[in-house]
Amino acid sequence: MATFVSDINVESTLTRAEIATGLKQIVDARYVLTAQEELAPYECDGLSAYQELPLAVVLPGTVDEVCTIMRFCSDHSIPVVARGAGTGLSGGALPYKNGILLGMSRFNRIVSIDADNRTAIVQPGVRNLAISEAVQHLGMYYAPDPSSQIACSIGGNVAENAGGVHCLKYGLTVHNLIKLKVVTVQGELFEVGSDALDTPGYDLLALMTGSEGLLGIVVEVTVRLLPKPTSARAVLASFDDVQTAGNAVASIISNGILPAGLEMMDNPAIRATEDFVHAGYPLDAAAILICELDGIDEEVEDQIEQVRHVLTDAGAVDIRVSCDEAERVRFWSGRKNAFPAVGRISPDYYCIDGTIPRRQLAGILENISRLSGEYGLAVANVFHAGDGNLHPLILYDANKPGEFERTEALGGAILEACVEAGGTITGEHGVGVEKINQMCVQFNDKELEQFHRIKHAFDPHLLLNPGKAIPTLARCAEFNAMHVHGGTLPHPDIERF
Amino acid sequence: MATFVSDINVESTLTRAEIATGLKQIVDARYVLTAQEELAPYECDGLSAYQELPLAVVLPGTVDEVCTIMRFCSDHSIPVVARGAGTGLSGGALPYKNGILLGMSRFNRIVSIDADNRTAIVQPGVRNLAISEAVQHLGMYYAPDPSSQIACSIGGNVAENAGGVHCLKYGLTVHNLIKLKVVTVQGELFEVGSDALDTPGYDLLALMTGSEGLLGIVVEVTVRLLPKPTSARAVLASFDDVQTAGNAVASIISNGILPAGLEMMDNPAIRATEDFVHAGYPLDAAAILICELDGIDEEVEDQIEQVRHVLTDAGAVDIRVSCDEAERVRFWSGRKNAFPAVGRISPDYYCIDGTIPRRQLAGILENISRLSGEYGLAVANVFHAGDGNLHPLILYDANKPGEFERTEALGGAILEACVEAGGTITGEHGVGVEKINQMCVQFNDKELEQFHRIKHAFDPHLLLNPGKAIPTLARCAEFNAMHVHGGTLPHPDIERF
Repeated sequence: MATFVSDINVESTLTRAEIATGLKQIVDARYVLTAQEELAPYECDGLSAYQELPLAVVLPGTVDEVCTIMRFCSDHSIPVVARGAGTGLSGGALPYKNGILLGMSRFNRIVSIDADNRTAIVQPGVRNLAISEAVQHLGMYYAPDPSSQIACSIGGNVAENAGGVHCLKYGLTVHNLIKLKVVTVQGELFEVGSDALDTPGYDLLALMTGSEGLLGIVVEVTVRLLPKPTSARAVLASFDDVQTAGNAVASIISNGILPAGLEMMDNPAIRATEDFVHAGYPLDAAAILICELDGIDEEVEDQIEQVRHVLTDAGAVDIRVSCDEAERVRFWSGRKNAFPAVGRISPDYYCIDGTIPRRQLAGILENISRLSGEYGLAVANVFHAGDGNLHPLILYDANKPGEFERTEALGGAILEACVEAGGTITGEHGVGVEKINQMCVQFNDKELEQFHRIKHAFDPHLLLNPGKAIPTLARCAEFNAMHVHGGTLPHPDIERF
Repeated sequence: MATFVSDINVESTLTRAEIATGLKQIVDARYVLTAQEELAPYECDGLSAYQELPLAVVLPGTVDEVCTIMRFCSDHSIPVVARGAGTGLSGGALPYKNGILLGMSRFNRIVSIDADNRTAIVQPGVRNLAISEAVQHLGMYYAPDPSSQIACSIGGNVAENAGGVHCLKYGLTVHNLIKLKVVTVQGELFEVGSDALDTPGYDLLALMTGSEGLLGIVVEVTVRLLPKPTSARAVLASFDDVQTAGNAVASIISNGILPAGLEMMDNPAIRATEDFVHAGYPLDAAAILICELDGIDEEVEDQIEQVRHVLTDAGAVDIRVSCDEAERVRFWSGRKNAFPAVGRISPDYYCIDGTIPRRQLAGILENISRLSGEYGLAVANVFHAGDGNLHPLILYDANKPGEFERTEALGGAILEACVEAGGTITGEHGVGVEKINQMCVQFNDKELEQFHRIKHAFDPHLLLNPGKAIPTLARCAEFNAMHVHGGTLPHPDIERF
């Protein structure tokens, strides 16, 4: 377990005690936590490899309180890290040691549902799945469905621009938002986006979405709702090698089929999963694809025939179609439990999140397999294949000295291979602290400077989530200097420049 | 015909002759225009009410040339207005008197088409419709379809975040882009977005889209392509009053139907159109709706039955369904020719572009009718009703003294009514110079300041399209001071503060 060294050093002029006193003048004292044992639950998010304690945790209950807290923090240079449900996988909600943690868990109300406009206004602490549950009786749902949807909050989804199995057809979080209320670092309340389809001015809604808490605090979210499809069926196809399966994905899309979900698992992932949930996956397959079609009955039938045809041409050795809802759910049960299943066969695993253009699927799989051999670490592959979002799971043992470091290096190498293939270092988990170095591979100095200028336009004193998501040029200079010498970890002795 | 007074005064240290000489060292001399008669065709875009001549027009042919031109302009403080096909309706490409006009018409190549990834890379001067034509043989098309699609360029579409009849189902330009290459004001080439679904860092692709040439020059566009639906049919419904028609639109959407297009016309628009193209519209209807459904045959059948049911319940007095492709095209012919049709019955017309949340349709129609009476000017209404995007056409005679000014004032009042109803002052035409004052109604000072800070992060010396799209606080102070005294035009004598 490691400490993340932030790029940016910000420190308040107030002591911890003075900060706590100030916060207690804004919210009821029981919502200001400072004792070690109260702070401990906030020491990390879903990326447990890094831990840090904040000076204090504050849990506001109203927008006014958030505004006042931000004014207080601005006035006294107190860094602020916002946190939703803490399920993020890239350390975006990792506390900053000189700052406070702003927990949004009390913002847990669904404010209103507008069936005519198919929108809902929710507070940021509302769980993703709770939105769909609240509008179920209207035949609607909220489309983005990250694996953590039972627990993750919509505010966190906005911060990370979360995806999910269905984002191939229905888009990422940014495509399913209408409007946000945001509190700036100066404590001002802003509305971005609008109830109408377009908004004049710069697109601050999109700019704010996925900005990982660096530009403002989201205090209200208006989401777009979709009508629930009347029918959904899944196709399970097996392949003798992973490259063929990768090419089949590209074929489905280029044949004009837009599945509601298109997922891929390789043999290690299949074996781990089948042993765990008995989804009926073929143990001898090199890879399987799960392809879901939704819509009205006839449309789904029609698409299933097309998919069957394309998959056969693409070299699938076995194709099964779910004949009822129970079987469809069983096909998915393996995929949805793939992460815990892999957790059963290895002491630890590390989930990578990169993307590549679809046609590069076969190539990147070869590359991952080669890198896995080079680093001496097994990899199980579970992909949102349809949108080229990879989740290679690196199997390792944290108790073996050096193995976590080797895992991190392999993860970095896989992400850099994604960038080389024309892809990116994150599909849906964000950069946070986890991929801060790989941002130096993804972007050049001019591009990073532009990001810093935008940050400056919102938060000139770098109080919001300092050091996350966008690396300083100094960090990149260091990382890139290292990097040309062969992809090993930065040496702690090297000087910053 | 008027001169637009820009908020911002930028002037180069070079003379016009020196600027021309400098440009001729970058591009071949025949691509630098300075003679009055050569500049005249660039004096306005589709908003012909305002005209201005630039110091020079330059027509670069390569990205390198654009970079060098921008470096030259940055070094010598020369303002730059970029122009695509010049079909924009808000004056976004109106020249700036102290600056040059950068014409992108020579960037007219389709660079590549990738069927596997369903994307195409095109230069910004490529016409919108030319993209769909180039991929037709693959069974694909580019979805956003502004009325001007036969002429408008994709670069201009990006600048204005253009919409169209199909954007209700398939989104605006921003939803159909993958990647942009952009040259900054400093002459640096940037890539924003990526071939993958998500990109780390701030969402510069969305920020750049719709920024009306204020943040950079688009030099390459990667668009998303969609598979062509196998079936499309249209429903034509008539109503006895416009409010009932407005409510029917909200009913269709809230019943979970997502039409490919959902348009509305009121009686003046119906009469003008029917007289012109004989689309078979009912002359006595107070309003008609045209609702298109697309997908596979069975899906379309299914949806048509649902729409018929909803429209009947909502009070439609007559419902017709296109029985073949020829009839579908005829139903649309009226809508697509509505603007020229209105042009036949009035010496001049002024097209307004505002949006409102769908459930406010009936209310805003009442409001427009009231305002039309107050200002003594007839209005024909043609709407992208499904997404609440209004195009009221104000009928006037430019030769009658004061009538254009009254028209502008009525247009402003309609847009402000849109904002009051929770909508916005632009659906798809952008702000440009036309709606610069209404931006003061849409946004408060804090929001405008944030826009200026973002502008500053890209273009600190305000060289790109100065004075468009985002008003200065001084302009808004003046406009708002005026405004409380009754919505009349600003008096030219008032002092700026």
